[in-house]
Amino acid sequence: MAKIVIIGAGAMGSALTVPLIQNGNVVNLWGTELDNKIIDDLKQGKPHPKHKYKLPSEVNTFYECELEKAMDGTDLIIMAITSDALGKIFKRVVPFLHKGAIVGSVSKGFEHNNKGKIVILPELLKEILPEKLKEEISFVVIGGPCKAIEVLWKSPTSVTYSSKNIVYANYMKKLLNTDVYNVETNNDVIGTEVCAAMKNAYAVSLGMAEGLKKRNGFLHNNTKSALFTFAVSEMCLLVTALGGNYKSAIGLPGMGDLEVTGEAGRNRILGEVIGEGMKASTAMEKMRTEGITVEGYAAIKFGYNLAKQLEVTGKLTLEELHLLNGLYKILYEDIPCYEIIKDLLSKCTGFYK
Amino acid sequence: MAKIVIIGAGAMGSALTVPLIQNGNVVNLWGTELDNKIIDDLKQGKPHPKHKYKLPSEVNTFYECELEKAMDGTDLIIMAITSDALGKIFKRVVPFLHKGAIVGSVSKGFEHNNKGKIVILPELLKEILPEKLKEEISFVVIGGPCKAIEVLWKSPTSVTYSSKNIVYANYMKKLLNTDVYNVETNNDVIGTEVCAAMKNAYAVSLGMAEGLKKRNGFLHNNTKSALFTFAVSEMCLLVTALGGNYKSAIGLPGMGDLEVTGEAGRNRILGEVIGEGMKASTAMEKMRTEGITVEGYAAIKFGYNLAKQLEVTGKLTLEELHLLNGLYKILYEDIPCYEIIKDLLSKCTGFYK
Repeated sequence: MAKIVIIGAGAMGSALTVPLIQNGNVVNLWGTELDNKIIDDLKQGKPHPKHKYKLPSEVNTFYECELEKAMDGTDLIIMAITSDALGKIFKRVVPFLHKGAIVGSVSKGFEHNNKGKIVILPELLKEILPEKLKEEISFVVIGGPCKAIEVLWKSPTSVTYSSKNIVYANYMKKLLNTDVYNVETNNDVIGTEVCAAMKNAYAVSLGMAEGLKKRNGFLHNNTKSALFTFAVSEMCLLVTALGGNYKSAIGLPGMGDLEVTGEAGRNRILGEVIGEGMKASTAMEKMRTEGITVEGYAAIKFGYNLAKQLEVTGKLTLEELHLLNGLYKILYEDIPCYEIIKDLLSKCTGFYK
Repeated sequence: MAKIVIIGAGAMGSALTVPLIQNGNVVNLWGTELDNKIIDDLKQGKPHPKHKYKLPSEVNTFYECELEKAMDGTDLIIMAITSDALGKIFKRVVPFLHKGAIVGSVSKGFEHNNKGKIVILPELLKEILPEKLKEEISFVVIGGPCKAIEVLWKSPTSVTYSSKNIVYANYMKKLLNTDVYNVETNNDVIGTEVCAAMKNAYAVSLGMAEGLKKRNGFLHNNTKSALFTFAVSEMCLLVTALGGNYKSAIGLPGMGDLEVTGEAGRNRILGEVIGEGMKASTAMEKMRTEGITVEGYAAIKFGYNLAKQLEVTGKLTLEELHLLNGLYKILYEDIPCYEIIKDLLSKCTGFYK
């Protein structure tokens, strides 16, 4: 049993209260300034407005102005903030961190660090820590196929917790692992994070294969499976070039999360409309107007630029990443999708070179 | 350009005429005694009765009684026969084989050899050859995600050709590879064949995850993705224990083909009805009454017994294969599906042990 604070009361943050409470932990759920309505509803015993589902009654809820109280005496801090706001919110959390605290993160994606270099999120968080805490705080990142709502429903789920020192991943596993929320642990922070970000990019291509049905008048399931396979092999290349373990790419964080992300959601929808024939710039314009953020869109550019960064080091050539290259051309240069996909499949070689 | 005979005028055999003709080859399509109606229709210029699609007019069609004529002067023989009838039909082909002939096979599955041992299909074919031909005939097996109808439609498709000597796989690639039918080649016959068979077994579990929605009242996409990941990791174990290359399991023949097989089809349907709550024995009884063969059902037993065979050699323990074990219990011992899946996910460790 431990005392945990979840920073961010969105879908994933609030879902994690379920296994935590099931294991008898004390759980504080803190909402950002965007979560006031959520906290209002939860305090009144209403369902969570995002997923229309009641949280366990034992969860303690805190408004944005109550951060210090929410953090008080907690052993584990779980950051459940979208990647673009993660740094900003973490800066507010830092003053209340004590030596030895463990920070978990469900945020997924890349960001630019203060030198403009593309980094994975735990690096960004570490940079924010004051010097005296840099070696005193341990980070654990969460990856793997996990739709938040299904954690609330208690659908059997398998996820990955990664920490440079596996002891901390195992500690967090002890607090969250239940009969239906299964946690595997490893020390491949890089692999888990890169996959968490890049699976969104590659899921866009799976959507495209679905969309081609409308454009061409027939199914493209063969195309989709080929894209799926090459997506995983490219995640392997990226992960290993960055010093991670390829097993993460062919495991829950890579292949597993790509599978669930390709099933539904905004990345897939973006791909679908482009596959159907809409120009990428038009599709993105439309989504922006509707206030929809598509993580895969940003991830394609981050991935593309990251590959360029890696090219300089000689660990990878951008040319090897036919699918990522193709996605960049479709999404950022408005080149028609079908022609690119047809062409790139003729070049992809997967794991056999 | 070469002269090719396709043995078996079913969906896949007839689909392969499309890339072959596109490349300017002479193509003979021979129908078994079960294909008379198909050959009738094709000779009259009607669509193929299986997929309601016209074959290229250049294809030469042959009735069952015209095998010798169909085989005459062919450089490549493609066996496109269901695995249970493959041996029987191949025995008829053998007398017309000349030294140096190349035999391709799209048949997928395991069979018992004449000593009762479980073997992959190329081994079965080789056993049938007379002594003087055993070292004179080369086999090429085809794997990867490939719905026959989509080859006819010219959906971009990526497949794998494997031969002990890659020269023969490359030769066959030269005859079939087109702008939309992409062939990768390697020498991992074992990996390609084991995956071709086992992906049917594991696809049943993906169907189960879909079916659980009806039983439990909510989606199980997290469950499905976890099962997908562990299926691939178990294919890796089986392939490597048999002396194959794990890259086939995480490539087109394994992961890729599992993806497309899990999308639709009989293996998935069997899984779905069991996931919804039907007893496996009832589901199989129903399918048998309707004359439906489910390849995954047989593959689960073959895989299970194969793992037992391997256990004796010390290359694998059946216990490591939590998912295959679970599928065997569900399908052959009528143990309820949800409980087995929930339990096995808590044990699966994937690639990180």
